[in-house]
Amino acid sequence: MLIHPDRLFPAEPGTRKIARTLYECVRELPLVSPHGHTQASWFARNEPFHDPAKLLVQPDHYIFRMLYSQGITLEDLEIGQPELKNPRKVWRIFASHYELFRGTPTRLWLDFAFQELFGLEQRLSEKTADLYFDAISEKLRTPEFLPRALYQRFNLEVLATTDSPLDSLAEHKAIRESNWKARILPTFRPDPVVDPEFDDFSENISKLGEKTGEDTSTWKGYLNALRVARLRFRELGCTATDHGHPTASTANLPTAEAAELFRRVIAGKADAKQQELFRAQMLTEMARMSVEDGLVMQIHPGSVRNHNRKLYERYGRDVGADIPMATNYVEALRPLLDQFGNERELTIILFTLDESAYSRELAPLAGHYPCLRLGPPWWFHDSPEGMMRFRERVTETAGFYNTVGFNDDTRAFLSIPARHDVARRMDCAYLAKLVAEHRLEEEEALEVAQDLAYRLVKKAYRL
Amino acid sequence: MLIHPDRLFPAEPGTRKIARTLYECVRELPLVSPHGHTQASWFARNEPFHDPAKLLVQPDHYIFRMLYSQGITLEDLEIGQPELKNPRKVWRIFASHYELFRGTPTRLWLDFAFQELFGLEQRLSEKTADLYFDAISEKLRTPEFLPRALYQRFNLEVLATTDSPLDSLAEHKAIRESNWKARILPTFRPDPVVDPEFDDFSENISKLGEKTGEDTSTWKGYLNALRVARLRFRELGCTATDHGHPTASTANLPTAEAAELFRRVIAGKADAKQQELFRAQMLTEMARMSVEDGLVMQIHPGSVRNHNRKLYERYGRDVGADIPMATNYVEALRPLLDQFGNERELTIILFTLDESAYSRELAPLAGHYPCLRLGPPWWFHDSPEGMMRFRERVTETAGFYNTVGFNDDTRAFLSIPARHDVARRMDCAYLAKLVAEHRLEEEEALEVAQDLAYRLVKKAYRL
Amino acid sequence: MLIHPDRLFPAEPGTRKIARTLYECVRELPLVSPHGHTQASWFARNEPFHDPAKLLVQPDHYIFRMLYSQGITLEDLEIGQPELKNPRKVWRIFASHYELFRGTPTRLWLDFAFQELFGLEQRLSEKTADLYFDAISEKLRTPEFLPRALYQRFNLEVLATTDSPLDSLAEHKAIRESNWKARILPTFRPDPVVDPEFDDFSENISKLGEKTGEDTSTWKGYLNALRVARLRFRELGCTATDHGHPTASTANLPTAEAAELFRRVIAGKADAKQQELFRAQMLTEMARMSVEDGLVMQIHPGSVRNHNRKLYERYGRDVGADIPMATNYVEALRPLLDQFGNERELTIILFTLDESAYSRELAPLAGHYPCLRLGPPWWFHDSPEGMMRFRERVTETAGFYNTVGFNDDTRAFLSIPARHDVARRMDCAYLAKLVAEHRLEEEEALEVAQDLAYRLVKKAYRL
Repeated sequence: MLIHPDRLFPAEPGTRKIARTLYECVRELPLVSPHGHTQASWFARNEPFHDPAKLLVQPDHYIFRMLYSQGITLEDLEIGQPELKNPRKVWRIFASHYELFRGTPTRLWLDFAFQELFGLEQRLSEKTADLYFDAISEKLRTPEFLPRALYQRFNLEVLATTDSPLDSLAEHKAIRESNWKARILPTFRPDPVVDPEFDDFSENISKLGEKTGEDTSTWKGYLNALRVARLRFRELGCTATDHGHPTASTANLPTAEAAELFRRVIAGKADAKQQELFRAQMLTEMARMSVEDGLVMQIHPGSVRNHNRKLYERYGRDVGADIPMATNYVEALRPLLDQFGNERELTIILFTLDESAYSRELAPLAGHYPCLRLGPPWWFHDSPEGMMRFRERVTETAGFYNTVGFNDDTRAFLSIPARHDVARRMDCAYLAKLVAEHRLEEEEALEVAQDLAYRLVKKAYRL
Repeated sequence: MLIHPDRLFPAEPGTRKIARTLYECVRELPLVSPHGHTQASWFARNEPFHDPAKLLVQPDHYIFRMLYSQGITLEDLEIGQPELKNPRKVWRIFASHYELFRGTPTRLWLDFAFQELFGLEQRLSEKTADLYFDAISEKLRTPEFLPRALYQRFNLEVLATTDSPLDSLAEHKAIRESNWKARILPTFRPDPVVDPEFDDFSENISKLGEKTGEDTSTWKGYLNALRVARLRFRELGCTATDHGHPTASTANLPTAEAAELFRRVIAGKADAKQQELFRAQMLTEMARMSVEDGLVMQIHPGSVRNHNRKLYERYGRDVGADIPMATNYVEALRPLLDQFGNERELTIILFTLDESAYSRELAPLAGHYPCLRLGPPWWFHDSPEGMMRFRERVTETAGFYNTVGFNDDTRAFLSIPARHDVARRMDCAYLAKLVAEHRLEEEEALEVAQDLAYRLVKKAYRL
Repeated sequence: MLIHPDRLFPAEPGTRKIARTLYECVRELPLVSPHGHTQASWFARNEPFHDPAKLLVQPDHYIFRMLYSQGITLEDLEIGQPELKNPRKVWRIFASHYELFRGTPTRLWLDFAFQELFGLEQRLSEKTADLYFDAISEKLRTPEFLPRALYQRFNLEVLATTDSPLDSLAEHKAIRESNWKARILPTFRPDPVVDPEFDDFSENISKLGEKTGEDTSTWKGYLNALRVARLRFRELGCTATDHGHPTASTANLPTAEAAELFRRVIAGKADAKQQELFRAQMLTEMARMSVEDGLVMQIHPGSVRNHNRKLYERYGRDVGADIPMATNYVEALRPLLDQFGNERELTIILFTLDESAYSRELAPLAGHYPCLRLGPPWWFHDSPEGMMRFRERVTETAGFYNTVGFNDDTRAFLSIPARHDVARRMDCAYLAKLVAEHRLEEEEALEVAQDLAYRLVKKAYRL
């Protein structure tokens, strides 16, 4: 077997027994996925997924980053090719380097999918590469592996995508207009129209004007256009926005200054500092609109995007060379919090890639401000040790109820059940430790386990 | 039962057994509390404590921060009211949200007091709120719950308060002049007269002049006034000073420059940078005076005070919106250490809210400079996980003997035994792990456990 | 007995059993020591080591830092004296303070050497000080304790020293020319000729010119001289360079600018910022040369050297007052990585003293760039907890195969087996946890344990 029923539970037998009991009460709860990067088109069209390489290797940063770090070229993996010329060859390269993933969450996620979805039982390796390729390929052609069937099989209750304000949301509409009773929701991610460093920023703002019928050449018209766009998302079930800024900086400029900054920014005359100030101002504007329309804000700061210049020049965005950096929250969020921090109807969910901020800044902030909640461990920290560190550093100051359950945040649709399973197991492992050390009663832990797996996410994201 | 005899001990049976043995040899040692925020007036007057809400909820930042973070208003909790109008209502709000404290040290401290002091055995909840309120209220009216009786019952050997140089210390004098044989000592906390951003700073300096008979309009007179004030504290048993600066910055200006900076500062003409420089200079001046008079220095940097602007404007200081920030020690302390770092008769105890500094800066500094010692995990880190992280990150570089035992640092008098109990248990848990992993002999661990619980604090604070 | 056969293994019996099994398969593998500070002269001359104090106390920063921090003076320890006047007295001081090392790796290393090398079985203390002194002194006079005999006994396969480009390497030549079949290699550490803040920097560069026959008064000649010097090292088996800069800053200036900066720097006219820029440029130049000649680069940034001004003025460099500081990698390395980051034939091994960078910056960088690898936990973190934190924070993002095994990095020759033993045990402890929690198969862990103990270091350092 590739995965063990007791995986991730503490080794100490008494604690493991408690962890098992807790896990039993959450394992079959529906999955709620309020933040991720799956594509609505999969569910709108419901066409079979491609071969194993196209499905599992090519879109997964975690996988091709690791292979690249060990000298495999992106050409070898056919990254950047719309269609794979030689998917079996790509798969074999991946399979013959599978030992690189020892000790990583990728290994846990993949083994789960290999065993639970595809019924495979031997470890992936150079030797079993073809066996895997053929077995997976065969399954992918069956009706049970169509996107909608998988959605049901995964026991998903809600699945949110992440979308540009310029997106037509046609796929989301198509899903809603079909007879299929699934809850697939868009998320409003305005980076392309609020971040002056985004590709084609000014052009995007013009398009936003066209789409919304507002004059986006003025500050007021621009803000109105964003309001209109948010409404369009809300009408399709959207409950949240998402903001992927380099830093957590916020600003709260007087209107005239903000308008002047906007003019400079869309004219392409803003320097780096002004661009940063504009993003900062826009977080506060987004908070203001959230107070008005109830959308939950998510802030995902602290990633240096496209760190590898040569890969970026050749392959463009999102080729796996995003690197975290130290991120300040305590001063950065102040202008926004001065304005809206005490709003009890506002929810802002903070994420970080800088774990040193967990206990130093994030737990104290979320343990005080009514609008703040802490998102789960993100990206590089979406892993057993990362999850344990999160709970250990956050709970004592912010408790459980200023956190918001799990986000899988993935493009890899097939990894969703595995990711939620890891999160549920690690939360149970943490709770079992508290129970074994008499810091919490088992009865309470059972309640908390269910809160963390299911209830908190629905409440926080207003689902 | 609310608390278990094995609480906080490692679950692994062999290690737990060692932890129990170690704990048995420290559990009954007297409590030494060299840093805290209890009030001398309680012991001077020895009047009954108020109702449970006034005693336990209202003054405890840990409690009302958490409630506030979840949407309870400060009005609901009657924060800022000198007398509670409806203490039972406040208590009920707290009781019905008690699950928010799951996994936090507040829960451990309160359950200890509920069971050990008040004999309560059912968990606090909405249902048991009135039962608790009545039972606690009744006990508080008995002689066994008068402040002096509790001091004895808690087995306190020393209890230090924290006091302004402008304080008359009349309560301390009254305690000494009474027949009561307790050791309650003031601590010299000069922030009101050395931090230019403190409310009424210049006025405070004038008052300091009046109190000491020195001309505090001059740099020399000001320093003399501080010397006189320190002497006044020492005469009442004070052995330590405390400094709550935003950063750990120190400076060592030539006298003429320092005098010029002082003139600017008391004239209210200093900008933020000059104010910071003045505080920095004053840490070095305080070290100089400590070399002269033997008072131990405590430095508590790294808190952004009053982060929530609206609450500060409405309720003033200390309403629970202090947030830690990243804190540098290695460059910040250099001017002071260049001057006094090699003084073997000087003791400076460093605290931090930035755990990333434990292994990177603080343990290496304390593991080298003869004057430096590390204070215990502070404030948000005064918790089981916080204490374990402290020992794990500090011991390997600084050892045990550059640390100074425990500080409860609390305003919540009734939580003192619980806090020391948590610290003793966690130190025993850490030591038990070292013994179980054959990194220390059990015999040695028994000695270290007693050092950490009792001997080191007395030595470091010169008690 | 001073050391236990199960030391450092997890206490939980099932996990301990796995750790033992893993350890059994690595305990007898040869030691590969690719980075350290032993002296080639010991092996060239093969003369007996001095007395215990001269051998074990005086050169070991870890020991005299700790003693100094507790009030022992450097005079008491005769630090800075070429010959000890009273070695027994120094030894007694050390012995009578041995409890200071409880919980530190120094204690583990020393007890290992005391028991395994010298057959001592009672704990070192004031009482046993003379027994130890005499027993060790006696052994040191026997042929079994000559440097070459110890090298064999330690099962060393490779031992690298660290050397200045100005070093004649005569001792290395002498070893090679002797009949002794050991592999003792120099490492090219150019700090004295690339760091403008180094003592006698300009003079060093002149000497470099003389030694290499290049005109080091020009940028081009200077670079050529470094090439020639590297070749000289390579001819004596050197496979790596090492760079101990204050920060990880790199730069990639146009040639004319670099040449102008060089002129300014050797003229002694560069300010602190320009000196830093020069070091930054030189890291990129060193990378360029490594692409040409295949030498592996090691970067050891983040230490504030000689923090204690008075000790530095009195005793010079390396008296134990180096203190880590926060270190940025993600922006600092960018200029170098923009140029060479995708070179698959280049290997750059990164070290840090700032553990907050492990999961935030270092693992993501090494988990992407083909040229980057992570060095083992360094200096203050070369300890059981430090090693565990390293694996826990690094593995999930960078895997095992972007790390490079162990470095003992020591001047204390006798501690080498103990240090490798601690590293092997901690890696086995970490792997045992993964196996016990069903995150890795035992069979795989056996392979990884051998990779971490032996194979990866040989591969990474091209040995």
